[in-house]
Amino acid sequence: MSAQSKVQVIIGSVRAGRLCPRIADWVTEIARARSSGLATEIVDLADFPLPMHDEPGIPALGHYAQPHTQAWSAKVAQAQGFVFVTPQYNWGYPASLKNALDHLHREWRGKAAVVVSYGGHGGGKCAVQLRQVLEGGLKMRVATTMPALELSEQAVRHGELDPQSAFGGHVEAVAQAFGELAELLAADPAAA
Amino acid sequence: MSAQSKVQVIIGSVRAGRLCPRIADWVTEIARARSSGLATEIVDLADFPLPMHDEPGIPALGHYAQPHTQAWSAKVAQAQGFVFVTPQYNWGYPASLKNALDHLHREWRGKAAVVVSYGGHGGGKCAVQLRQVLEGGLKMRVATTMPALELSEQAVRHGELDPQSAFGGHVEAVAQAFGELAELLAADPAAA
Repeated sequence: MSAQSKVQVIIGSVRAGRLCPRIADWVTEIARARSSGLATEIVDLADFPLPMHDEPGIPALGHYAQPHTQAWSAKVAQAQGFVFVTPQYNWGYPASLKNALDHLHREWRGKAAVVVSYGGHGGGKCAVQLRQVLEGGLKMRVATTMPALELSEQAVRHGELDPQSAFGGHVEAVAQAFGELAELLAADPAAA
Repeated sequence: MSAQSKVQVIIGSVRAGRLCPRIADWVTEIARARSSGLATEIVDLADFPLPMHDEPGIPALGHYAQPHTQAWSAKVAQAQGFVFVTPQYNWGYPASLKNALDHLHREWRGKAAVVVSYGGHGGGKCAVQLRQVLEGGLKMRVATTMPALELSEQAVRHGELDPQSAFGGHVEAVAQAFGELAELLAADPAAA
């Protein structure tokens, strides 16, 4: 890993009233405090709207017809590592994140990733499914530690959340995941 | 199960150039030939566009702000059983189908379902993930048999597919799944 390894922290939810940006901020603060050598940038999927119906080709072929897909491709191509901050919906990953992943192909391949999930029932089931997609489907290299944050009733129903106090017990797990991300990046010559 | 049990065959992909409608037709033909007593209707998700960002509340509360969500809710509420015809993308389910599932909540609860998946690598991994969402997340009752159809290279790359000849070996599995669906419907007093 060079001092220049770029890591994008992806805000995986685009829902109105989402908590994801606050959680992504909290995760990124931990990375900045603990993991020198990783240049983190928050990337909001809401800034990259990708309609589900307008790419005629399959992503594996890499020919993107739409400017929005091309913009997303160019963005993802800039980074060597990714932190997916994702809500758990109904035991799985949200459409917004899967849509963004499925729109591309070679841009993800071989790159390093961390999964941070959250939800009213935690996010562990979503994390396991997402890991399968990232590793099996997209051939990414995923950190073993996958922090899964349980939201309170107040957070789920009323959007009231102070990550610092709610998730204090998870700081070390997040730092650990970033440590593993740094090792994955160091192990890959292409990311240096 | 009464003679009136309504089953919606959901076209799970909305992608340009999708094969899903042809596969849904093929599946529905088998149901009509084999399973008397099930009133099947094909429902195309392309007819129910559901933006991922404009519902402020959580679906479990059942207050839908947008007319498109209300229309989708009314549609799903009409049926007692569902056949999800879904492509496998990167070992998982597509955003289009997950988005349609996640927009609602009580409309799915307790109802019967079949998963029919397809893809260049078959669809078995998608089917397992989707089953977890349907059973664990949405509390649906899912048929054991989940036909997973492998597409040829020609089908994946050029959209050339004649389901009748390509999937002849799966007719019995699809018929079996519909048989199980009929049993699940019969076992539920609410569906009678």
